[in-house]
Amino acid sequence: MRVYIAGSGAMGCRFGYQLSKTKHEVILLDNWDAHIESIRENGLKVTGDFDDVVQLPIMKPTEATEVADLIILLTKADQLPKMLQDIKGIIGEKTKVLSLLNGLGHATTMRRYVPDESIMVGVTIWLAGLKGPGHAHLQGPGSISVQNMVGDGQSVADMIAMFNEAGLNATYDDHVINAIWQKACVNGTMNPTCTILNCTIGELFGTEGGLNLVQGIFKEFIAVAKSETDGIDEEAIWKYIIDASKKASNHYPSMHQDLVQNGRKTEIDYLNGAVVFKGKRAGIPTPYCQMITEMVHAKEAMLGLR
Amino acid sequence: MRVYIAGSGAMGCRFGYQLSKTKHEVILLDNWDAHIESIRENGLKVTGDFDDVVQLPIMKPTEATEVADLIILLTKADQLPKMLQDIKGIIGEKTKVLSLLNGLGHATTMRRYVPDESIMVGVTIWLAGLKGPGHAHLQGPGSISVQNMVGDGQSVADMIAMFNEAGLNATYDDHVINAIWQKACVNGTMNPTCTILNCTIGELFGTEGGLNLVQGIFKEFIAVAKSETDGIDEEAIWKYIIDASKKASNHYPSMHQDLVQNGRKTEIDYLNGAVVFKGKRAGIPTPYCQMITEMVHAKEAMLGLR
Repeated sequence: MRVYIAGSGAMGCRFGYQLSKTKHEVILLDNWDAHIESIRENGLKVTGDFDDVVQLPIMKPTEATEVADLIILLTKADQLPKMLQDIKGIIGEKTKVLSLLNGLGHATTMRRYVPDESIMVGVTIWLAGLKGPGHAHLQGPGSISVQNMVGDGQSVADMIAMFNEAGLNATYDDHVINAIWQKACVNGTMNPTCTILNCTIGELFGTEGGLNLVQGIFKEFIAVAKSETDGIDEEAIWKYIIDASKKASNHYPSMHQDLVQNGRKTEIDYLNGAVVFKGKRAGIPTPYCQMITEMVHAKEAMLGLR
Repeated sequence: MRVYIAGSGAMGCRFGYQLSKTKHEVILLDNWDAHIESIRENGLKVTGDFDDVVQLPIMKPTEATEVADLIILLTKADQLPKMLQDIKGIIGEKTKVLSLLNGLGHATTMRRYVPDESIMVGVTIWLAGLKGPGHAHLQGPGSISVQNMVGDGQSVADMIAMFNEAGLNATYDDHVINAIWQKACVNGTMNPTCTILNCTIGELFGTEGGLNLVQGIFKEFIAVAKSETDGIDEEAIWKYIIDASKKASNHYPSMHQDLVQNGRKTEIDYLNGAVVFKGKRAGIPTPYCQMITEMVHAKEAMLGLR
């Protein structure tokens, strides 16, 4: 298979690196010049659970010309439309396009560029970090679940096998949408709240006011999720959130790192903002999501990011 | 008249100082030891529009024994119940008790200690600051409006005359409750938002997200105000808020000074928190007020203030 990684940040490097150890052809796509240069000159360096350097082709999305068997989308959410536009030329009739982006609403974006039969959505709990251009730090266990938008898993058995050959711990799951909602619930409750209150996950969950916020946002996510898909298990997701909050108690969530620590625009529009949008469409009020989205937007605007 | 100032912080010192220039007897009540000591030893020092030192009696609330003609309540909101408890002995049959506290819900507290016929509520737009124990800084113009809870203004004409003799620019107003709501709308929209977003009033109103927050909170205040009193002029209050935001554009509101700058508990429970409480009673949803109250509570808890 010819596999493109469309968006070769930290997570893209993990997938690219692990897949490069199989017999399949892997090509990284990215727009960060220093990253491209470093990987071309010195190879992709991986540390953490691995200690390795691999030679992997990397190019800008617009430079890719050979039709793909599989494209794994791992961009930042707001870069997705441009990426899909840039790689139109390598999406053939039989190309599968798999989104592993965080957040909600990406299938809708993909449908503007890719036929339904080619779309796959997935969710991963692997972690990855970048230490600098060309250097990924990969630590801890993880897994990936994927689903075809149309049809069952039979047609992508080869792909699942490839992921597992690469040690990526993959399963085909007829309810990936539920897993995506579960992950979005974790991020949507912790990320903007810790960002706006400038606190760790433990500090948020350790106060009555913080817990009320989390619950208010959670209820809205669940109401909108239930309007989109069957089988949402509210109690199980709540338990998952509480467990996640305990494990990450001393951490600031990624949105805090983005906005507060690094002054970067957040993915709020693909989390709480998406719930507001979907809620409006379904006639479900989402005032908590709306207010926290407005707060993050306000903060972004004050930092000159919108 | 014998006038007690119950709560002699910055604003109490303004009222005490200006009233001391009339023929009436003024006694300051406060619990801050260094403040009491300084005023007893050196007198009350005033700067700004004045440059003066006056000898004024000051004591702890529990030490006051002579029945009052007028008690002006100027405590912090959460100190009000204890203050009323402490001064029960000086509230006689003919004593008027006037609340000039910021925020909402104080008349309800007063009714637990004072008969309706003795209660007055008022609102002031005078400003005042404390430069340190015994030193008030008084600058800018202001005014005060007051209203009896029961009966008309005829019976308190003497009091109004006294305030005006002191230059406090007083009027009797049959709609003080509307003025209290107007002031609460200003504080309720700007104070917690700037506190949580850690920004100036100008920064808040200068972003789309910030303005959306202000409008969301404002709509809830107005809906609850309309359920409590007639004659709320939504358009006029909105214009007043916008004007206030322009005048104070470079400032952080007082709640920001309390919580962010000085690590002190806020008056959120008497602003947005009171709107949530009143809204629940009236069956009016107030999710924006509830969420921002929870955020301020969370921040207070993280700072060990609750």
